[in-house]
Amino acid sequence: MEEKLPAYEENTSGYHNVIKKFEYLDHTADVQIHSWGDNIEETFEQAAMAMFNYMTDIDGVRPVKTVEITAEGTDYMSLLFHFMDEFLFLSSCDDFFMAREIKITNFDRENWRMEALGYGEDFNQERHGGKGTEVKAITYSAMQVIESEAKSEIFVIVDI
Amino acid sequence: MEEKLPAYEENTSGYHNVIKKFEYLDHTADVQIHSWGDNIEETFEQAAMAMFNYMTDIDGVRPVKTVEITAEGTDYMSLLFHFMDEFLFLSSCDDFFMAREIKITNFDRENWRMEALGYGEDFNQERHGGKGTEVKAITYSAMQVIESEAKSEIFVIVDI
Repeated sequence: MEEKLPAYEENTSGYHNVIKKFEYLDHTADVQIHSWGDNIEETFEQAAMAMFNYMTDIDGVRPVKTVEITAEGTDYMSLLFHFMDEFLFLSSCDDFFMAREIKITNFDRENWRMEALGYGEDFNQERHGGKGTEVKAITYSAMQVIESEAKSEIFVIVDI
Repeated sequence: MEEKLPAYEENTSGYHNVIKKFEYLDHTADVQIHSWGDNIEETFEQAAMAMFNYMTDIDGVRPVKTVEITAEGTDYMSLLFHFMDEFLFLSSCDDFFMAREIKITNFDRENWRMEALGYGEDFNQERHGGKGTEVKAITYSAMQVIESEAKSEIFVIVDI
C-alpha cells in the first residue's frame, strides 16, 4: 500500500511521474488443451505432449533421456490428472525435464493404473529458451475424456 | 483438428518434427486491481488509472489530449463498472487513447451518475510500446467498493 511520490525521473513523456495509489494483486491464467488420437492411449500421450509443447517447442527437444512415470486413479479423469501431474512434476523440479514424445507402456483399465515413458532431455535455456510459458497446475475444470471407436478426445485446462 | 505431419524441417534438436494431435483452444487471464484514495472519487480515479497503467506505463504518457466520459449506474459497483468501461472503450477504439491522469468532475450519489476527464494522448507505439498488455473487459467478479471516513478502497478484476 506504499504510495509512490511523484518524481521528476526520466520517463518517455518528459513529465513528472504520476501519483499512484494502486497495485496489481493477482494474476491468473489458463489454457485449454485439446488432444485427440486413434485410441485413448495416444490421446493421453498427446495431451501430455501438448503440455510440454506449451512450455517449449517440443520439436526442438532431443530424445536423449528417458524417464518413467506411473499414475493411478479411479476413472479416466483422475488417471489423466495424475498422469499429466507426474510429468509436470518432472518438468518443474531438479533438472526441468522436457519431453519430446511420450509413450504409454501399460494402461490398466481394471485397476486404473498406467505406466509411461517420456523421451526428451533436461531443459536447456540456450536451445529451448525464448518460448517458455510455465505450466503451474493441471485442473479438473471442464475436463473431458471422450473415448469412441473411431477417435478419442481430451479437453483439459491447465493453469499457466 | 488438422494433423501436422512430421517433417525434416530445421529445428534446434536436429531431429524431425513430432507428430502433433493437439491444439490450444482457449486462453483466459485476469488481473485484480486494488486501488485506494482519500475519498471515493480518488479511489475511482486510481482504479481507472491502474487499468491504463497495465496497458502502458502511464508515467510515459503525455497530458496533451483531454477526453470526457459520463457513466451511470444504480450503485457503487455498477457505476465503477461503467466508469471504467467508458475509458476502456476509448482505449480500444479509433485512436487508442491512453490516460495519464483521470479527474472526476461530478459524482452524483443521488442519481448514481458521474462525469470524468481523462488527460493523456493517443497510443504511440514508438514511445509507449513494449509493455502493453491489452485489457479486454472489466468484470464484476469479486468486485469490492469500500468507503470509509479515513480511506476508500476498490478491488476489481479485469480480463486481459
